[in-house]
Order: sequence, then structure tokens, then C-alpha cells
Amino acid sequence: MRITNVLERSAPLDSAIRNAVIDFSQMTASCVAVVTDVVRAGKPVIGYGFNSNGRYAQGGILRERIIPRLLAANPENLLTDDGSNLCPFKAQQVMMANEKPGGHGERSVAVGTVDMALWDAVAKIEEQPLSRLLARRYNGSQLDERVYVYAAGGYYYPGKQLQGLQDEFRRYLDLGYDACKMKIGGADLDEDLRRIEAALKVVGDGQRLAVDANARFDVPTALQYADALQSLGLKWYEEPVDPLDYAAHAEIAAAYDGPLATGENLFSMPDARNLIRHGGLQADRDILQFDPVLSYGLVEYLRTLEMLESNGWSRRRCIPHGGHQFALHIAAGLGLGGNESYPEVFQPFGGFADECDIENGMIRLPNVPGIGIELKSDLMAVFDELVAGAKL
Amino acid sequence: MRITNVLERSAPLDSAIRNAVIDFSQMTASCVAVVTDVVRAGKPVIGYGFNSNGRYAQGGILRERIIPRLLAANPENLLTDDGSNLCPFKAQQVMMANEKPGGHGERSVAVGTVDMALWDAVAKIEEQPLSRLLARRYNGSQLDERVYVYAAGGYYYPGKQLQGLQDEFRRYLDLGYDACKMKIGGADLDEDLRRIEAALKVVGDGQRLAVDANARFDVPTALQYADALQSLGLKWYEEPVDPLDYAAHAEIAAAYDGPLATGENLFSMPDARNLIRHGGLQADRDILQFDPVLSYGLVEYLRTLEMLESNGWSRRRCIPHGGHQFALHIAAGLGLGGNESYPEVFQPFGGFADECDIENGMIRLPNVPGIGIELKSDLMAVFDELVAGAKL
Repeated sequence: MRITNVLERSAPLDSAIRNAVIDFSQMTASCVAVVTDVVRAGKPVIGYGFNSNGRYAQGGILRERIIPRLLAANPENLLTDDGSNLCPFKAQQVMMANEKPGGHGERSVAVGTVDMALWDAVAKIEEQPLSRLLARRYNGSQLDERVYVYAAGGYYYPGKQLQGLQDEFRRYLDLGYDACKMKIGGADLDEDLRRIEAALKVVGDGQRLAVDANARFDVPTALQYADALQSLGLKWYEEPVDPLDYAAHAEIAAAYDGPLATGENLFSMPDARNLIRHGGLQADRDILQFDPVLSYGLVEYLRTLEMLESNGWSRRRCIPHGGHQFALHIAAGLGLGGNESYPEVFQPFGGFADECDIENGMIRLPNVPGIGIELKSDLMAVFDELVAGAKL
Repeated sequence: MRITNVLERSAPLDSAIRNAVIDFSQMTASCVAVVTDVVRAGKPVIGYGFNSNGRYAQGGILRERIIPRLLAANPENLLTDDGSNLCPFKAQQVMMANEKPGGHGERSVAVGTVDMALWDAVAKIEEQPLSRLLARRYNGSQLDERVYVYAAGGYYYPGKQLQGLQDEFRRYLDLGYDACKMKIGGADLDEDLRRIEAALKVVGDGQRLAVDANARFDVPTALQYADALQSLGLKWYEEPVDPLDYAAHAEIAAAYDGPLATGENLFSMPDARNLIRHGGLQADRDILQFDPVLSYGLVEYLRTLEMLESNGWSRRRCIPHGGHQFALHIAAGLGLGGNESYPEVFQPFGGFADECDIENGMIRLPNVPGIGIELKSDLMAVFDELVAGAKL
């Protein structure tokens, strides 16, 4: 078997929102299709991948470096030893040939996007949901039938008032979520506290509300917020400061009693390891949000999980950023603590299968081969367009 | 005044070489021209920039994000407050709009390449060599008339023997260099020690020879090399391990008595700060090689220098990676410890002005406005081609 083509395009994300740091209206995502010569149900197997929100499409790096390396590789250097399926681990070695260490960003997104497509193809070729394949290979066949998800939103929409925030969170609860996350740091502390108070009235109590500063604060401001949030018993306080300022994390972790969450802007195992070594986080309290797609894919994420375990962290402390079906399969198959969800933003990339009920914050994965992108119609339309007319 | 156009193209580097980690034969560089409506000597002032070797051209990020933001900006948001010249600090804010924190790689190269072109234009508009402008603005007018440079080479050319390495280093000494750097880690320790011994016979003593492992080793191997190198009194032992493994650096720094050098693969002030905080390096011994062009440009490098000074490090401990005239001006104007030089590789991007003598390892900067790319004929040919036919 072999890869016959790798297609890519950039697509816009539909998001007229901003967080404390950036405006998402110009955000794009790379879509990748890995076409194989394996036939299932009368058609060639195609794996689909796209990058999580927050980082831009990577068309240049994909077209100039990553895809040419895959297409130039000896096909057997991309296959399992028995030649029966694609091997994402070997593919990563091919994609990262002649790349220097360090500087993990952008490139990590390009590679991670292809990695998603490769795993989709691998599971389709095995005719299994990816979650089941991952559980069998990497988690002693322990599969979580349902995965915990929380609703991320609460952005600073232009002109949005407290009532708007409350209405938004009521919609999330009506959808079956039991916890919501809102942005902070885009206003001053007093206004944010009023927004938090309004949100708490809807969600019920602090354990059902997380807040996210998107790395905006300096240390004094982060500590001021920590002090003000302390008594609210929030689910977590996310990304108070620059993701790479580990010493600042340690200072905040020492001052704040509740759970901290961070990691979505660390894009490799070595970066994640530095957070664990130097960030002062607590393995029995804090949440790690490393995003597999933005970070060289599941191949690197497995390395990160191994690093975490060797440092005494349970996989259950991991709740990835990303809000899509790939991370959901990873959470189910590897026994993570849950997955982010964006019920109303980042379309068509945010979200799960069209027919996918959430109950008490738990979601059941559909039982189809691969990741299940085919079950999310607006997202599949993007990939249908990518593949239409291309050499299969 | 305003920027009238920003041109870019990718160009290959002529380098049939490899180090311990990568093959440079496919390496590319981005070339950028920032065209202004300021006229000097009857022509519009154009600033030129290109990225240092080791990281690839960034055409995608430049065309999709960085250049459109510059061209869409209100012109006054790119100028000094008095409107008399471009302001690279404001331009960086424009280029980094809607970019999330963390993930410093690739994007940092794209921004750094434009930053070089902006500073070239700024100095040309002021009709001064960049080094003099920098000394006046940021170094109390202390300008180093000559800058220390060392000759980096000693790669693993296919088929190269000890004699080849010795001949190469003899050529460097004949050019006026007093110290050479060679790659290690592409062979086993015994062979590398034979190569080092052969090199020492040419350069004379350990203080004139640095070795560079390009981050290839794991900690045990790095320590094994450290032990073997200890008695040779080398100039420095460079990048023994992964650039982001600060704890490993601390372990090696504690075991090795001689100078260590690292930093060329850390691409932001926060990454550099982590090395200083967690890497166990010694301010009276070790060498910092952060590359301004790969790391968001001189604007970010000034932040890094400020961070270093607040941590008790002298600028003289900085000898940037890159080997080009931009870093040379920065070294001269800001009082760094020197600059890397690639006498025989990475053409046409490596190296300085055509008529530029080196004596006892010291180089004098030519006295022309800007960076002086016009004085390096093979490099200027690339930019002439970029600008030919474009809207000026």
C-alpha cells in the first residue's frame, strides 16, 4: 500500500470573536487529505486532518517542506514493519527530516495536521474508530465509552452585555454541558468580576465555571486576579501569564489554592516538560491542556504523556485544547480527563458529530471507522471540496 | 513618509554540507525588500533583509500574515512619533497583531527577516551605518570600530578526511581568523577526538578551537564528551543537548569546567530567559548565541539584552549565530562579544562585505549607510533580482 496524494488548502474559521489577546476574525485553518491506494467500501481510504483554532493555516510549510518530503519518501518508510498500514511514527521522522531542534511553533502545527489525517487513515484501514484503536495499542484496551467535555465560550463579543453572557451559558447547559469556561482579562478586574458573578448565577456554582486569561496578565495582575478569584472555588484559572514564563507559573501556583490550567501554547514534549519541571504545578490539582494537533500530532502527544507519567502525573489531568473529534478520540482511547468543546464558535472546525448528544457533560463517541469527520456535515463539506477533482 | 511595497522571495543556500543533525542541501532563505517613498541619492530607500541559515524560508507566513498586516497598516502606525523615519518597534506590534503568545519558531523568522530590512531602511534614511545608529540610540554612543569574528566550519562533508579539515582551517587562518569552530557528534567520540586532535595541530591550542554538537547528544553522551574534552581547554563546547532541555544544560554546566555556548535555537526573549533561569549557565564563563534574525529581529533582541543585564550578564557574553552583516552591526553598535562567520558556506547569505579584511580575528565595518548589503555583490544580486520590475 502507499500514499498516492496529499492535498491541502486553507479555510477561514467563522468566528467574529476576540479573547483578551487576539481577534479571531482573520483566523484560518489548514485542511489536509492523505489519499491512499487502500480500498474500503469500494473507495480509496482518505484520512482527513485540520489544525485546531488559535494558530493559523500552515500552507507554506506544508507545501514547501512537509508534503514534498512525504511524497518523495520511499513508500515503505511510511508503513508499519509488516506493510499493512501507515505508520505515523515513521511518517513523523520523514516529515521532520532536516529540521533542527527547538523553535516549536507553526511547523508543529503543519506536522500535527498531517498527523491527524494519518491517524484517521490508519483507523479507517483497520475499520475501527480511532479511540478503540488507540485504547488497544496504547492503553491496555481500556476505552472510555464516554468523555467529559466542557463548553468553552464567554468571549468578549463586541457589544456583548452580561445578559448575553448568561444567555450563552444557558444555551450550553441546555445542550447538556455541566460546566462552562469564560474569558477574562479583556476588561478590568471589576468588570470581569461582574461577568463572573453573572455567569455563576447561571451555572450554579464555582465548580461549574472556569476562567481563561489567555496569557494576558503580568505577574502582579495575575496575582491580583488570583486573590479575587480565590474564594469562588472555580473549576480552574487558565493561562494567567505568558505560557513560557514557568517561574511566573510557579509563583501563581504557590499563591492560588484552586486548580490552574495551562499548556495550549506549548507545542512539543520538551516545552511541556519544562512546564512540569519549572512551573510549580501540582499533579493532584492542576490541568494540562496541551493540544495534540498544534504540537506535532499524536505521535508527539504520546511522548508527552510518557513524560508526564514519569513525572508522576496521571493522564486524567490532561484535558486538551482543540475542541474536535480527533482530541475526543484521543481522550477516550488514552484515558484523559476530558476534552474542550466550542459549541458556538470556530465553525466548521469546532465541535463533534452532528448527531452527538451530551448528557451531564459526557459525550458518547460514534462508532464509525476513523475519526468520524464524515459525521460532521459542515466540516465534511470542506474536505469534499478539497478532494473534488483531485487525483485519487 | 510611508512604506510603498514589501517584496519577498525564497532563495536556495549553496551548501553541500551537513552537521550532526541535518543536511543543508535543501535549505532556503527568505529575502525581503521594504520599499519606501524616501529618496536618497536620487533613488527610493529600500531596506533589505534575509533570514539566517538553519531555518527555512518563510514565504507562506510572510505572504499570508506579516506583509499584508504591514501593507494594511495606517502608515503612521509604522513611523516614529515625529514621522521622520520608520519605527521597527511599532512595526513589530503591527506584524504581531492577532498572534498568540508562545510557539516561537518560523513566525519569529518571518518577523525577524522583515525587522532586518526595516533597520536597514532606518539607517539608510538617517544616512548612517546601522552600527553607529545603534550605538547612539542604545549604547551611549559607544561603538566598537572592530568586531571579533570566528570561523565556523568543520562540517562533515561527504568523504571528507582529517586532511580536508586541516586544509579548511588553514584557509581560515590565512584569511585572518584566529579561531575556528568544528562540528562534532556526527561521528563517534573516538573519531571526533581524532578530528579535534587534527584541528588542534592547525589552530595551535584549545583557546582557538570551539566544538559544536548541534544539540545532538543525550545527557550521558554529552557528559561523556564533556569528560573527554575537559583537558583540551577548548574555546567552547556548543549545544551539547536539546536547546530546550534546560535541566540537562544545568547538569552539563555543573560537570564541565570550560565554557559552554548555546542559544541559537531559542527564538524569543521568554525562551532565552528560561535558559538563563533554569540552564545553570555561568555569566563569567559561558557564551550566548541567540540569533536576532531568527528571533523576531533586533526589536526582540534588545528585550533579550535587557533581560540578560537584569540577570547580571554582560553583553560581551553574546556572540550571535548568523554570520552576516546585520549581526555584525548589532555586535559593533551594542557592544557584544563578537559574531559568527561562515567563510565558505551558506552563500550568498553567509559573510560580510566583499572588501572586508580580517586581522587577528577582528573585522572592521564598512562606512556606508544601512547594513551594507550593497557591498556584498553576490548577495546584492539576489536583491536586485527581487526588486527588478517591482513597483517602487
